[in-house]
Amino acid sequence: MENTFKSFLAPSRILLGPGPATVNPRVLKALSQPTLGHLDPNVISMMDEIKAMLRNSFLTENEHTFVISAPGSVGMEFSFVNLIEPGEKVIICTNGYFGDRMKQVAERSGAEVVVVAGEWGKPLDIENLKITLKYNPDTKFVGFVSSETSTGVRNDTKALCEIAKQAGCITIVDAVTTLGATEFRVDEWGVDMAYSCSQKGLGSVPGMSPVTISPLAVEKIKNRKTPITSWFLDLNNVWPYWGSFEKRSYHHTAPVNSFYALHESLVILMEEGLENSWSRHTRNHLYLSDAMATLGMDFYVEAPYRLPQLNTILLKEGMDDAAIRKSLLLDYGIEVGAGLGAGFGKLWRIGLMGYGSNIENIDRLMNALKIIL
Amino acid sequence: MENTFKSFLAPSRILLGPGPATVNPRVLKALSQPTLGHLDPNVISMMDEIKAMLRNSFLTENEHTFVISAPGSVGMEFSFVNLIEPGEKVIICTNGYFGDRMKQVAERSGAEVVVVAGEWGKPLDIENLKITLKYNPDTKFVGFVSSETSTGVRNDTKALCEIAKQAGCITIVDAVTTLGATEFRVDEWGVDMAYSCSQKGLGSVPGMSPVTISPLAVEKIKNRKTPITSWFLDLNNVWPYWGSFEKRSYHHTAPVNSFYALHESLVILMEEGLENSWSRHTRNHLYLSDAMATLGMDFYVEAPYRLPQLNTILLKEGMDDAAIRKSLLLDYGIEVGAGLGAGFGKLWRIGLMGYGSNIENIDRLMNALKIIL
Repeated sequence: MENTFKSFLAPSRILLGPGPATVNPRVLKALSQPTLGHLDPNVISMMDEIKAMLRNSFLTENEHTFVISAPGSVGMEFSFVNLIEPGEKVIICTNGYFGDRMKQVAERSGAEVVVVAGEWGKPLDIENLKITLKYNPDTKFVGFVSSETSTGVRNDTKALCEIAKQAGCITIVDAVTTLGATEFRVDEWGVDMAYSCSQKGLGSVPGMSPVTISPLAVEKIKNRKTPITSWFLDLNNVWPYWGSFEKRSYHHTAPVNSFYALHESLVILMEEGLENSWSRHTRNHLYLSDAMATLGMDFYVEAPYRLPQLNTILLKEGMDDAAIRKSLLLDYGIEVGAGLGAGFGKLWRIGLMGYGSNIENIDRLMNALKIIL
Repeated sequence: MENTFKSFLAPSRILLGPGPATVNPRVLKALSQPTLGHLDPNVISMMDEIKAMLRNSFLTENEHTFVISAPGSVGMEFSFVNLIEPGEKVIICTNGYFGDRMKQVAERSGAEVVVVAGEWGKPLDIENLKITLKYNPDTKFVGFVSSETSTGVRNDTKALCEIAKQAGCITIVDAVTTLGATEFRVDEWGVDMAYSCSQKGLGSVPGMSPVTISPLAVEKIKNRKTPITSWFLDLNNVWPYWGSFEKRSYHHTAPVNSFYALHESLVILMEEGLENSWSRHTRNHLYLSDAMATLGMDFYVEAPYRLPQLNTILLKEGMDDAAIRKSLLLDYGIEVGAGLGAGFGKLWRIGLMGYGSNIENIDRLMNALKIIL
């Protein structure tokens, strides 16, 4: 039988959606280096550098800072399957699609879930968490999303963690859209478990999930009385793979090329400086904000709670969502994100993340939009 | 604080271990193409081609043939968490490290596991399975590893599945080291659930797990009465992401670059032809076998049960395992695998897989070995 399949050729695109962001050519070059065995000494020392640079990015001294070899949503699952034993009470504060997902993942882990339901497009209410904790003194965990990718809302991680810690809870924070893009301080803010992804603020290719775990959370996991249902995500299996330089035990075959890419994206972040990266994301967000105003387009979220890396822009009366996004993509090679869930057809999600957060990209988007509209 | 981290430069290596195998430069080039959004129409049609080429590689018409965005060991976990409900009986036939892992993963899924324990280095005993099924008529599943990567033993997938199907069981077969390298016929042999990896017979970079599920197994999953503990691996969540070209629902952010690489490795396999690839693996195995004989080195496994893609070679008296492997790696840039588990220090695992299965690699290995020894 003759073969009819051909090599895939990726067209050139500017990715201004909710992620992946456009990847720095340096990262793509690193990605395509020859594959090495996952027990090669060069790989092991590279993995040690990844751990060190992730600590610098999460602003933590947590020893248990490493990478799950799967997408960010698996980082979420990793957190819950390790920490939670059946019947333990967890409060999930939710004000968007990914908060809802956290609730589902928590339920599957066997938790008794109490939801603090916030409004989409508004930040989580600190007082609501305080009251819910008061009426649920047996709560062991509080989980929430720091940057809600579905709505573009920044939740106040510091304040939420403070309340949770006062109540003696372990905090689980989704930093998927946060890490590298906006302020996030694991140790200073009392974050016990955080997970992120490779393809947003860090600007690498998609598929990896950096995680960090405080000594308190590690202790909780070590003292479990019930087994962890997932073999792949069991910290007791995966940590010996990342933890020790000298005696490392086999777990899975690491996606070495994806590690090369993540390593390079972290080197780029270290070169720029973490706080400089945060400032750049804010600066470009304000530039976009001014540009959108010239089109008479407004943000979905009130100014103090906007995420610089994920801009939710309301469509104006009569604008054809699908047609405009299609033209942007196919005629101008620019991807912007549709609304997710309740926001579909009502707003765009414009990501300015990692390498993709620059003025040239915004100018190209605005020029294309002016022609299309 | 000044940055001290530098870009990682991967040295050049010939990978003749248990995987990853040396990756074809065409695959590395495909990998490094610009990242696209996972909802891009170009990505969706590429994913459709991946499904079609995987069906050609698994020799199946199973609609549910796609990729788990994580390493092969997650393909194993995917199979068990979806298929098995707590308390259901599964027979695991084990004759090596990965059979043992399958047992552990099955136990975590809540199965009542009956083990048919075989000997390391010998193929699984068909009669043992037959007898065990007779004494366990309530068995619903039979699982085993087709190519045991720890020992280099080929198990008789066809015969094992035949016995299991006669007893009305659903078959779960590990094809991690099999797919693309040696004969494997999902539909003809009665394999209900198979999973593999990207970095061995297919010759792509590590990190992806192709899976295929028969209509019978899909039916079993659809009729579950208990929820699936894993959100990420729940077929009901992941299939809408892969299944439908027109209406696709969001699940996770696909590792698009890894899909490019897998796609290219499959195109290369289609160009060569599946059976031609099997023949090439066998031919190069025999070439290695002759070469090893000139060094007076013998195989761990008897000839009829050897895996052409994973050659386990016994060390001779007085050979310093670690020192020779270190010299091969650091002086000659050649990686061979150490023994795993009980085989450590006693044998080498020489992988001749995918692009890495060629005569030049064997000659370079033999020349280096002759100098070192």
